Amino acid sequence: MTIDLQESRTALYSAVLSDVMDGLGLMNQAMATFVRPLDESLVMMGRARTGLYMDVYSIEDGEDPYDVEIAMVDDLKTGDVAVLACRGPTTRIAPWGELLSTAARCRGAQGCVTDGLVRDIRKIREMNFPVFHGGIGPLDSKGRAKMMKRDVPIDCAGVRIHPGDIVFGDADGVVVVPQARAEEVIAAALRKVTSENHTRDALLEGKLLREVYDEFGVL
Amino acid sequence: MTIDLQESRTALYSAVLSDVMDGLGLMNQAMATFVRPLDESLVMMGRARTGLYMDVYSIEDGEDPYDVEIAMVDDLKTGDVAVLACRGPTTRIAPWGELLSTAARCRGAQGCVTDGLVRDIRKIREMNFPVFHGGIGPLDSKGRAKMMKRDVPIDCAGVRIHPGDIVFGDADGVVVVPQARAEEVIAAALRKVTSENHTRDALLEGKLLREVYDEFGVL
Amino acid sequence: MTIDLQESRTALYSAVLSDVMDGLGLMNQAMATFVRPLDESLVMMGRARTGLYMDVYSIEDGEDPYDVEIAMVDDLKTGDVAVLACRGPTTRIAPWGELLSTAARCRGAQGCVTDGLVRDIRKIREMNFPVFHGGIGPLDSKGRAKMMKRDVPIDCAGVRIHPGDIVFGDADGVVVVPQARAEEVIAAALRKVTSENHTRDALLEGKLLREVYDEFGVL
Amino acid sequence: MTIDLQESRTALYSAVLSDVMDGLGLMNQAMATFVRPLDESLVMMGRARTGLYMDVYSIEDGEDPYDVEIAMVDDLKTGDVAVLACRGPTTRIAPWGELLSTAARCRGAQGCVTDGLVRDIRKIREMNFPVFHGGIGPLDSKGRAKMMKRDVPIDCAGVRIHPGDIVFGDADGVVVVPQARAEEVIAAALRKVTSENHTRDALLEGKLLREVYDEFGVL
Amino acid sequence: MTIDLQESRTALYSAVLSDVMDGLGLMNQAMATFVRPLDESLVMMGRARTGLYMDVYSIEDGEDPYDVEIAMVDDLKTGDVAVLACRGPTTRIAPWGELLSTAARCRGAQGCVTDGLVRDIRKIREMNFPVFHGGIGPLDSKGRAKMMKRDVPIDCAGVRIHPGDIVFGDADGVVVVPQARAEEVIAAALRKVTSENHTRDALLEGKLLREVYDEFGVL
Amino acid sequence: MTIDLQESRTALYSAVLSDVMDGLGLMNQAMATFVRPLDESLVMMGRARTGLYMDVYSIEDGEDPYDVEIAMVDDLKTGDVAVLACRGPTTRIAPWGELLSTAARCRGAQGCVTDGLVRDIRKIREMNFPVFHGGIGPLDSKGRAKMMKRDVPIDCAGVRIHPGDIVFGDADGVVVVPQARAEEVIAAALRKVTSENHTRDALLEGKLLREVYDEFGVL
Repeated sequence: MTIDLQESRTALYSAVLSDVMDGLGLMNQAMATFVRPLDESLVMMGRARTGLYMDVYSIEDGEDPYDVEIAMVDDLKTGDVAVLACRGPTTRIAPWGELLSTAARCRGAQGCVTDGLVRDIRKIREMNFPVFHGGIGPLDSKGRAKMMKRDVPIDCAGVRIHPGDIVFGDADGVVVVPQARAEEVIAAALRKVTSENHTRDALLEGKLLREVYDEFGVL
Repeated sequence: MTIDLQESRTALYSAVLSDVMDGLGLMNQAMATFVRPLDESLVMMGRARTGLYMDVYSIEDGEDPYDVEIAMVDDLKTGDVAVLACRGPTTRIAPWGELLSTAARCRGAQGCVTDGLVRDIRKIREMNFPVFHGGIGPLDSKGRAKMMKRDVPIDCAGVRIHPGDIVFGDADGVVVVPQARAEEVIAAALRKVTSENHTRDALLEGKLLREVYDEFGVL
Repeated sequence: MTIDLQESRTALYSAVLSDVMDGLGLMNQAMATFVRPLDESLVMMGRARTGLYMDVYSIEDGEDPYDVEIAMVDDLKTGDVAVLACRGPTTRIAPWGELLSTAARCRGAQGCVTDGLVRDIRKIREMNFPVFHGGIGPLDSKGRAKMMKRDVPIDCAGVRIHPGDIVFGDADGVVVVPQARAEEVIAAALRKVTSENHTRDALLEGKLLREVYDEFGVL
Repeated sequence: MTIDLQESRTALYSAVLSDVMDGLGLMNQAMATFVRPLDESLVMMGRARTGLYMDVYSIEDGEDPYDVEIAMVDDLKTGDVAVLACRGPTTRIAPWGELLSTAARCRGAQGCVTDGLVRDIRKIREMNFPVFHGGIGPLDSKGRAKMMKRDVPIDCAGVRIHPGDIVFGDADGVVVVPQARAEEVIAAALRKVTSENHTRDALLEGKLLREVYDEFGVL
Repeated sequence: MTIDLQESRTALYSAVLSDVMDGLGLMNQAMATFVRPLDESLVMMGRARTGLYMDVYSIEDGEDPYDVEIAMVDDLKTGDVAVLACRGPTTRIAPWGELLSTAARCRGAQGCVTDGLVRDIRKIREMNFPVFHGGIGPLDSKGRAKMMKRDVPIDCAGVRIHPGDIVFGDADGVVVVPQARAEEVIAAALRKVTSENHTRDALLEGKLLREVYDEFGVL
Repeated sequence: MTIDLQESRTALYSAVLSDVMDGLGLMNQAMATFVRPLDESLVMMGRARTGLYMDVYSIEDGEDPYDVEIAMVDDLKTGDVAVLACRGPTTRIAPWGELLSTAARCRGAQGCVTDGLVRDIRKIREMNFPVFHGGIGPLDSKGRAKMMKRDVPIDCAGVRIHPGDIVFGDADGVVVVPQARAEEVIAAALRKVTSENHTRDALLEGKLLREVYDEFGVL
């Protein structure tokens, strides 16, 4: 894949990616609205690395409650985004916090998305590390939930995600671009940004929406 | 109606309008709390122009998915507030965004309230255009929902709204003043603001709440 | 109890208190995530003073709708935190606002937690008075809900709270430390803060999470 | 009031009462659908006697957890229906069961409606005593909830009910006829039953719905 | 299409159709569990005729609130099933009742499925007309909701349905077979019924599940 | 343990067990009301054997989607009750059906409780095998959820359950008696049944509830 993540992260936004995917018939790529950015000024774009959590009610003798999670974080590569599925938004536990953000950034990760909770939010914001979460709360996952599998297909906030899909998050929310369609989608999105600029300019000149929409076909 | 929208917008706040309407037996005029301002520092006050959305799952041949919506936005007048009912807060689609905000402001609109979602939030905030929304998300309405009727009675976030009602929004939420009661309500609210100032002053002097409430009857 | 509230308020945070209580088998001490701080930069710590609300649909002749509430606020002592249980988050009414914040602060209270709503949020933020709430809305409680009992055990946002328990709130949420365990919990939390600092330092040096967790046992 | 409860109970049904009240502008008189009959073959009609519950988390020294409830049941009169508001359907407790059904029937009560739970359902069904409930569960109210007020206005499953209103329940659900409109509503409902019979007959003869609706105006 | 609806209705059941579609990658064909049969002993199978409802809050001058609905019912053909989408299960209104059941049966319809409510349930049960519904309630749709479109793609209880799809309902729920796959699915389902019979026989002989599943591959 | 399950199953009911546990301070032993019996005439009592499910979105190469589940069912002993935790009631999948009921009964199991769904309900009812479920639906668990652990502590419908606890279900719902308290609870429950019979008799003689409650202390 020859996508320039750095350039795309700057030029694109989630709404234009969503519109382009709509036009291609990919209509279920936006996460539910309960997933929000910890910092609305940050933009996140990277390749999905997935983790799947199960609620648990005990730790068995000799069990390491974090083994799969630690292995996944230590295996993150430059440009990866950790995507953690906890069957939110009813989850009470926070699978992500400051220490995991620190570890992930040291491996080159671009951010984290979870339908579960996040904690240590003030420290994470100070790091400028993009985290998109299903809520904020102090409860650790230990003894409450465990990552059972990693690098498998998951469902996070209503979107099916495979390892390697492109995950994009900004102030409007998170969208997922399937790996096989990524080049096509991103190229079309870069073109659509231009049409929206023409539409805005025409409206600011005082034209009616009817005229402008008939001319540019963008709303 | 001889209400001075500009002056009232500066002097009043949603809680005092709500209290005054309570006293007149109008007890169901505050929208549900899931409707929040995009910018808590802005105050919005204007006359309701209503739109009613239906979820759809296809666009029929030759159908314009935006026709009613475009007609309504192009018909907005100075002092109007667009009020869009999508049967939130479970809606996933965003009927409102930056381009509609731009078009509405050019017509003189004072803001927008919807129980649906809003997108392009960073650009809308830069415009200082007041939008009160039922959530934030990137999904366009096209092929997902359509405005079917405009300028009809609607229910938005639990409040019945007729075209021409006064809609007021600030950091505490959105209240609706029925058109026929607007002068009476606004006059009483301006008076109540004064009583609350007396109450605050007395509390700051160290008086007990019991004494202060018995004297001013305001809490 | 010889807890130094001032020192603990500065040194601790909700996540470390939660982790320490988890280790002691106190696993249900964190309020549900719908309770959020009005100002994420403030930290609140104090002794619980409790109030229990019931939804009502009328005010009987001669009834004072605020009598128990006023008595409780006027009886607040230095270091107290008002904890108001309204069976949120479905409550529409705001039992707390600017005037009660003013009255409570004058008595020496450290803050307020409620699973109900709060109003007058801009003025409360200007006061720097910590309020943790189940939502924001303009509706007064008068004629809608009434504090029926005070200084009794309550359930607020999923946590059982007795008068005198220690309530701690910061940007990550609210945790409750049972009075009988407070000294033990706070002492252990102060120690754990140090371990987390070591973990962070080791991660920033580039060590793998696996090594660091094996060394410090903190995540 | 000269309503013949016995005759009306036999001739009417909830849907026709609802339709008639709709025609008179009383559009919020049907309880939410989570309230279901324990026995779908029974019809209940009577005058509302109301009770209002609050969740509690302790029993204070010397407190009788059932005092208001017992007083209300012992005061039931022939033709009364107990209507118990628990802020369902999230309540876990059962304010009603076999023993209260037995006591109520001995006083002449016609049934019970609650948005809370009911227990001892097999024995109540054997009694042929009509109970409409918000769920079924074994948990007693003692120490969990308490009737705080009786014979006051309440909200039960979304309908405002005053003591003395007519409560009607059958397999389709529960509707409430305000006392002041009861004679008018019941008389109109008895007439509408006849129109529906004509409509059904015409449809069974094979006529199109279009023709039949144009002729009788009933659907 | 040469499907024998009568034979398939007798031989098949919803679980086996669901399993067969799972095997073909059609994994989202079962309606959500809130849709239940009015009579668990009836089986329904037929071709979908769709209707799409919108909540309304008024009837405009000269508007016929039932026009699209009446046209659709009068146009039903032998073997059709009316499928009505109301964005349940939060809908309060009942788009279907005894009179529509009577009219639909006279046209040859095989049943009705809706995520909205149904009323007149005792009379419909007496007719042995299969109705699958999202709840039971007495409220008419008039002035509350209106069928805006018919014979278009809809979403009902989480399943996308096109006109002409095969709808199958029994005590376990409702599944939808896309028209283009119907012959393939039904043929495979008839074969799978035989395997399940072998599995049951082997278990009844006392074999372990492990052995039986390894032999027949069915659970 | 010397509990006579057969005798207790006949003499007791869930409400009396719940009341007795309340009196001993065990106040969270009743499952949430969304768990209902498939057949209200059956009573189930036995020792818990637990299974914990996780939602999955794929089956990995060589993975047996049913391995833990099959091992658990084949290991059931006489008097066991299968208790399956799926994080209901939002689960769409049915972990239990007719074939598992058949296999479990052949091993001597007394029933099944799950917060997930059940399918094949008509055939299970014909077997008179007690199943308590969180809903009814046709979707198999294969490729949607998997039992990851068995014979561990779980949470099912809000109750913490350990292997070996006594599970009791009847028409009013399901209660769980911790193993260590089982003898004490069951003995007290058998005594309480007698007091309730005295209360009923006194009420049927026409005594007021006030008198009867003061005499027997049972409601």
